[in-house]
Amino acid sequence: MVPSSDAVNWFPEDHRFMAHALRLAEKGLYTTDPNPRVGCVLVQGNEVVGEGWHQRAGGPHAEIVALRDAGERARDATAYVTLEPCSHHGRTPPCADALIEAGVRRVAVAMQDPNPRVAGRGLERLRRAGIDVSCGLLWQEAERLNPGFIKRMRSGLPFVRSKLAMSLDGRTALASGESKWITGEVARQDVHRLRARSSAIVTGIGTVRADDPLLSARPDEATDLEQPARVILDSRLRSPANARVFRQAGRTLVLTTASDPPARQALLNAGAEVLEVQPDAAGRPELTAVLRLLGRMEFNEVLFEAGATLNGALLLAGVVDEWTVYLAPCVLGDEARGLFRLPGLAGMADRQELAIVDARRVGRDMRLILRPCG
Amino acid sequence: MVPSSDAVNWFPEDHRFMAHALRLAEKGLYTTDPNPRVGCVLVQGNEVVGEGWHQRAGGPHAEIVALRDAGERARDATAYVTLEPCSHHGRTPPCADALIEAGVRRVAVAMQDPNPRVAGRGLERLRRAGIDVSCGLLWQEAERLNPGFIKRMRSGLPFVRSKLAMSLDGRTALASGESKWITGEVARQDVHRLRARSSAIVTGIGTVRADDPLLSARPDEATDLEQPARVILDSRLRSPANARVFRQAGRTLVLTTASDPPARQALLNAGAEVLEVQPDAAGRPELTAVLRLLGRMEFNEVLFEAGATLNGALLLAGVVDEWTVYLAPCVLGDEARGLFRLPGLAGMADRQELAIVDARRVGRDMRLILRPCG
Repeated sequence: MVPSSDAVNWFPEDHRFMAHALRLAEKGLYTTDPNPRVGCVLVQGNEVVGEGWHQRAGGPHAEIVALRDAGERARDATAYVTLEPCSHHGRTPPCADALIEAGVRRVAVAMQDPNPRVAGRGLERLRRAGIDVSCGLLWQEAERLNPGFIKRMRSGLPFVRSKLAMSLDGRTALASGESKWITGEVARQDVHRLRARSSAIVTGIGTVRADDPLLSARPDEATDLEQPARVILDSRLRSPANARVFRQAGRTLVLTTASDPPARQALLNAGAEVLEVQPDAAGRPELTAVLRLLGRMEFNEVLFEAGATLNGALLLAGVVDEWTVYLAPCVLGDEARGLFRLPGLAGMADRQELAIVDARRVGRDMRLILRPCG
Repeated sequence: MVPSSDAVNWFPEDHRFMAHALRLAEKGLYTTDPNPRVGCVLVQGNEVVGEGWHQRAGGPHAEIVALRDAGERARDATAYVTLEPCSHHGRTPPCADALIEAGVRRVAVAMQDPNPRVAGRGLERLRRAGIDVSCGLLWQEAERLNPGFIKRMRSGLPFVRSKLAMSLDGRTALASGESKWITGEVARQDVHRLRARSSAIVTGIGTVRADDPLLSARPDEATDLEQPARVILDSRLRSPANARVFRQAGRTLVLTTASDPPARQALLNAGAEVLEVQPDAAGRPELTAVLRLLGRMEFNEVLFEAGATLNGALLLAGVVDEWTVYLAPCVLGDEARGLFRLPGLAGMADRQELAIVDARRVGRDMRLILRPCG
């Protein structure tokens, strides 16, 4: 059973139609940035008369698409919406007003607007128009659609994932640096889906110099995909201007603590945006400042794909919401490179504890999803 | 669908009764050594009239227990037996003869005797007595009950497991050697069950000196448990005579390549058995020779619980049938100790490939079971 935030008695068909709206919302997984993924279903009796989802920022919201789809049949319908309809004029007029005008009789909402300064106003506006409004149906599933948008609205920070690919014995590369490929094709496709849903992919200068990665999202199924931004943490502006990341579609940001005008200009010429951020004690970009900056740039979900040094720093800073670890059933041995560079622990009590929230097979490999404890 | 080795049309009730016999056999998981785990069900119509399982060597076989349980009702019954009834006089008279004398009408067998020199003779004896005999029902499940007995009968070698407990980043202990406890209570209970089903637990001298382990099986549910033998690979007879392994119930074997009479005598006085085995190029006990010796001692399943050096050697020697890896969701960092000591790999193509055959959550940890590829 899914708990609901209001004390509402939901009917079985309510669950079915909201699940339908959630599936519609998911179609925007790769495209709605910086907006949330939202779906809407309009129902008369037990018949779906309109459906819609938000496709991209600037385009119509899910409710508007569904209302257009339903036409006159929207009158007296029930609307199932995965996120509270907006009540303010943004790039488009308020959806709450559109639902009222269309004569919808009842609105079921999965979750409130996550922005605490806005939450509830859309529902209130519908209620004042005499519409039967209830909220909380499948709210956990709705939250899972938009971890980045929700966190950013609540805290100003993006939702942070870090992806790691390792052998059974916790090694990410041979001593020589060779790492292609530890995991199999199915796991690598899974990574492309993870990249595609992210607003930005963040890596360190070490990875750029060692692997010269593309950091682009190339999922099999996506025809209509906006490439995530690439973000390079590069204290001393050592990124080679001919690195492949600069030649991809979309933005590439170089975050630095150095002001080295010639190096900066070379990167600008290569098409990068160069931004100075506050240094930490070691002179590297301070991670919380980096994330605040990415939040201000309206990045919802950011994915770190980094080496042992940056991952060690991320772990110690406690800024990662979700670790996605691909484990390949091979052994590279103790001379190969480790997963996390950390200062030696004095005792077992000092270890970093995580919790496994999901574990599944991806082809011949395993994928573990872990979150911080507590 | 379970394939059957004969082209037999099994009825649904056949599966049900053989599954019952398999569950009975499993009751002997911790006690039948060096014999196999075997279960038997006698059925009249659709009613179970007798059940039995083999409890311990020297005691009655499963068929005899079931026949005694059924008494006169064994006449014209169907017998479901998880392993081909024996046809030779061992410590007990042949079960095939007992089934014939009791007037059983039909015998369904899961798998033949794994000893190629004996296989089929029990079935043949029953057939010659006019009994309807068929074989192959749930044979995969039956094989899974006795991997050690089967392998030893076929090859003379025990079934070899190695158990590893590691952090997410593939570390088994801190740099200091501290390793208590990486995994949680549920995983540690699982290890005790793994030990309890094993005939012997093998470790290296490094582990004995560093951790002074008990290496005893202490599963919650076992009341009636014979302790597995402890086997220490100790090239130079450096085992301390006051080590805790020597003070446990059951046998402790020290396998060495040294002939150091005083050290040997000290260990004999401590209650150990000391055996010399052939050295490998590095002067350590040669692993194939060790396993041949353990096979000759009628050990069915042996469990290695060792450090990175011995596990590296096991991996390279290719002698492990099953790796059981407990993965705890914590991070110990790159100064902590690794899982496998191996020479550095020249390229990714040289890595050791395994295959994941089972993955499940055990409490807060994961348990992976891996087998060699191909």
